[in-house]
This record gives sequence, structure tokens and C-alpha cells, in this order.
Amino acid sequence: MSRTVYLNGSFVPFEEARIPIMDRGFLFADGIYEVSAVLDGRLVDNEAHLARLDRSLGEIGIRNPHTIAEWIGLETELAERNGLDEGVVYMQVTRGVAERDFAFPPADTPPSVVMFTQKKAIVSSPLAETGARVITVEDLRWKRRDIKSVALLAQVLAKQAAAAAGVAEAWMVEDGAVTEGSSSTAFIVTKDRRIVTRPLSTALLPGITRAAVLRLASEADLAIEERLFSVEEAHDAAEAFYTSASAFVMPVVSLDGRTLGDGHPGPLTRRLRALYIEMARAG
Amino acid sequence: MSRTVYLNGSFVPFEEARIPIMDRGFLFADGIYEVSAVLDGRLVDNEAHLARLDRSLGEIGIRNPHTIAEWIGLETELAERNGLDEGVVYMQVTRGVAERDFAFPPADTPPSVVMFTQKKAIVSSPLAETGARVITVEDLRWKRRDIKSVALLAQVLAKQAAAAAGVAEAWMVEDGAVTEGSSSTAFIVTKDRRIVTRPLSTALLPGITRAAVLRLASEADLAIEERLFSVEEAHDAAEAFYTSASAFVMPVVSLDGRTLGDGHPGPLTRRLRALYIEMARAG
Repeated sequence: MSRTVYLNGSFVPFEEARIPIMDRGFLFADGIYEVSAVLDGRLVDNEAHLARLDRSLGEIGIRNPHTIAEWIGLETELAERNGLDEGVVYMQVTRGVAERDFAFPPADTPPSVVMFTQKKAIVSSPLAETGARVITVEDLRWKRRDIKSVALLAQVLAKQAAAAAGVAEAWMVEDGAVTEGSSSTAFIVTKDRRIVTRPLSTALLPGITRAAVLRLASEADLAIEERLFSVEEAHDAAEAFYTSASAFVMPVVSLDGRTLGDGHPGPLTRRLRALYIEMARAG
Repeated sequence: MSRTVYLNGSFVPFEEARIPIMDRGFLFADGIYEVSAVLDGRLVDNEAHLARLDRSLGEIGIRNPHTIAEWIGLETELAERNGLDEGVVYMQVTRGVAERDFAFPPADTPPSVVMFTQKKAIVSSPLAETGARVITVEDLRWKRRDIKSVALLAQVLAKQAAAAAGVAEAWMVEDGAVTEGSSSTAFIVTKDRRIVTRPLSTALLPGITRAAVLRLASEADLAIEERLFSVEEAHDAAEAFYTSASAFVMPVVSLDGRTLGDGHPGPLTRRLRALYIEMARAG
């Protein structure tokens, strides 16, 4: 099956999906993106992703070109056309095509919309079985990390530092505290079994999977603390994990080369991963 | 004359210049750019721009796809093909096209190269005659502002704030001090005729025009102080101006609605602008 992409109103072959060089996404990183997981052919927690997409667009003054229903229709058709059973749907909206100038183009400039799918083994991820190793890096990002923009160079450099170190993810650190992963939300579990993650602010992305996991943990009467945690506290944690749309709940078994717990995915982490998969499967 | 663009080895009509959606410049802002001015059909201070391009690429681990001589050849041919007498040559290099994944693609992935020209009245700019009005905004950018990356969303928002306020530029402020303009370097002239601009660091771009102006000022035995200056000091300055490749030396006549000096371009600013134009014309 050939790969199909959605581009500004049309479903086109992957190889033909091109954008003008004057697209503001290419010149200025002037755009927003979202990633929704697909499991068993169904979108996971998708309306929350679409709500965040709408919020991010609003924060930088890009008109949302589609209603929620239209987005769902496009995502569903794209997944079907690509025979996507498990993986992700990627959506990007930019401020459109205009002669290069920093200030916004005329208000009637149509936003550009690009969507594609990626197949991915999420539930049966080998990494989820063994657990991920993670390093910490300095958080270089801008101050509005609550906006899911395509200005991702700092995250690219963080993830590449992880890849160069032979590990799966980098957790970013600012003033001694873990902010979040390069493409995930960071959690630790303390030795007295409290789940700790940073509270929401402009300093981190409001993770959709983060919110679902906190909801599931609360329903299971697990102890949650939304507060800053330091790198040292993370090094001494009983367990750790990270969440993202495409990783669900990913166990962390070492941080900066220090083994966490017994070096295997922790029991509380495994339980949360199972609860999340169950929720995702229930639709 | 139809507009011609340079794209990955070919000169192509503007309308045909498109990049694949999987270009990392579009998905991740994973790229670097430069802008060189053209005056009287000749590139201005161009080798310094190409040296900064090379440095920026090196800082994020993108291979510079061209030698200095090759870049100059491409810029010259592009300017000629577009009949560019006065304006700018824009160059962008991204980490190339690869399936979306934050970490770097294989090392043999060819960088993408895009170049285009823009005609612009630089010397006879009406704004340079009247002087520009400027506002201050919070500096939202990431921590490596010395890298001239296309992750420009914060600068876009700053420039748009200026446009919305009906002024030409926004100066970004961090911890009470002016860092730089959204697309320029900020200078003030104190009442005792000292030219003040922030010293170089990772907190601002090493402006090519900034360096030339400091050199010209030094040669003219003008007093220079490379140090932080506060918004309050700028409000009380005798003169102010900003520099960029496409504005040269632009007088500032009001800041945050407060008139600077007598509300006209200051004498020291006009002298530096004249010296810079003379240098640019001399080639």
C-alpha cells in the first residue's frame, strides 16, 4: 500500500507532498503540531489532542482551519487510507505561505495543513519490556513551553544527546529541577510510593497522556504529588517513567547511568501502563 | 523578469520551489539561515555572514554543504538572475529530509539548501529618514541566541507585537535589560555621547552589522561601551538605533512611546549610518 498524506484539502501520495519554500513553518517555525496515537485502528484520547491543538493555535494567533468534527474526519480517513492499525497521526498547522517578513501576513492568508501517519509498535514496544535508559541535559527551550510549536530545535538537540549516549530519552533540567523529557512528560515514584510530576505552567507542555495517567492514578487511589522534583531526587527514586502520545507510559530503568530500583520496570509503572492501555483499548 | 530561487543544486522558478513535508526545517525548525545585503549589485560584508553561517551550522552539527567560494558563486548568480541591485540574499540550510524522528537522521542525509532574493530600498529607506519607533517586549527566546536558527517563533511574536502597536521594531527585554531587537541589534547613545550595546554571549546573536558599526565607531574615535543597558536607561538615552543586514543603521526616535532626544534621528546615529553606507559602497 502506498503512503498517503493530507495536504491543504487533498489526500496526495507521500512523494508528491511538498510545501512552498515561503511557508512560514519552514522559514520561521511559525506553526503548531499535534500527535494522536492509533491503537486497534482507533484514535486514542484524540479530542484532548484536538483541544490542545486549538489552544496552541490560539496562543500564537493562527486561525484553526477545521472544526473538531472535521479534524476527526480527516484523521480517520487518513488512518484508513494508510491501513494504520497501530501508530500515530501527525498534524501540523502553519501560518501559511507569504513573502518572508517576521510580522504576520494578511489575516486572510490561509493556514497550511499537513497530516501524515507513522506505523509504530506501541503496546508491544520492546523498550517498554526492558525499560528505557535516560540522561539529563540542560533545558535550552524558550519560555512558552505550553505551546506545542514546531520550533523544536532545542528538543532535537536534547534527543540527539540521548541518541549519542545510546539511551532512549533526555530529561531536560532547569535550575536543578527536571522540567520534562525532550518529547515526553517526566514522572518519578518515590520510595514511599508517591507519584511525582511537575505541575502545569508555561514551563512545560500540558501532556495529554500525563493528564490521563494522573486521572487513572487518582481513580486507583494512588498518591500523586504535582510538584517540582530535582535531578538528585530522580536519581534516588524507586521508579521512574515518562509519558507521551506515542510511548503511552514508558518505564525508566536508569537515569544518568544510575540504576533505578532493581533495574527493571517498576511495579507501579507497570500498573499505570496496563491501566493506560486498557483505557486506550476501551476507546 | 520572473523570480528565480536556488534549491538543492538548481535554479528554479519561484513558483516551483517546494520542499518535501519531511524536511526537518519544516517539522523541527532544524536549520540555520543567513541574510546578506546587496547594494549597487554587490554583496555587503558577505564573508562575515558566511563565516557566521558556518559557525551556526557547526553548533548544531549540520555539515556546511558549500565552501565559502561556492556560496559566493551561488549568491552572485542568484542576484544576477534576479536583477538584484539593492536588497537581500536569503540563505537557509536544514538538516535535510528524513522520516520524522527528533534525533538526527543518518549522517549521510544531505542538507537542504534554499536561497532567494528580496528587493528592498535600504539606503533610501523612508524609515531611516524619519527614524523608527520601537516598543519593548519580554524576551521569550531559547538560551542559544548566538545560533542563527530558523526556530524564530519568539521573534515572529515580538515583531508582530511591534506591528500591532504600529511601530517598526520590538526590543526584547530580559531581567530588565535590553537583549536585542526581534531582528536587529540594539544600541543606545548616552547623553555624554557614549555608544552602548550589549556584549556578545550566548544571549544574543553576534550581529555582523553590529561588528562593522563598532569597528567604524572605533576608527572614528567614538566612545564605545559593550555592556548591558536597562530599559530605563534606554528611555532616557540621547539617541538610539538598531543594526541589521537589511536595515544597516536604523535611527530610533521613540521607545515605548517616549520620544528620544528631539524626536529626529540623532547626529551620532546619522554619522554611523553614513559611515556604514560609505563602507558598503566601497565594497
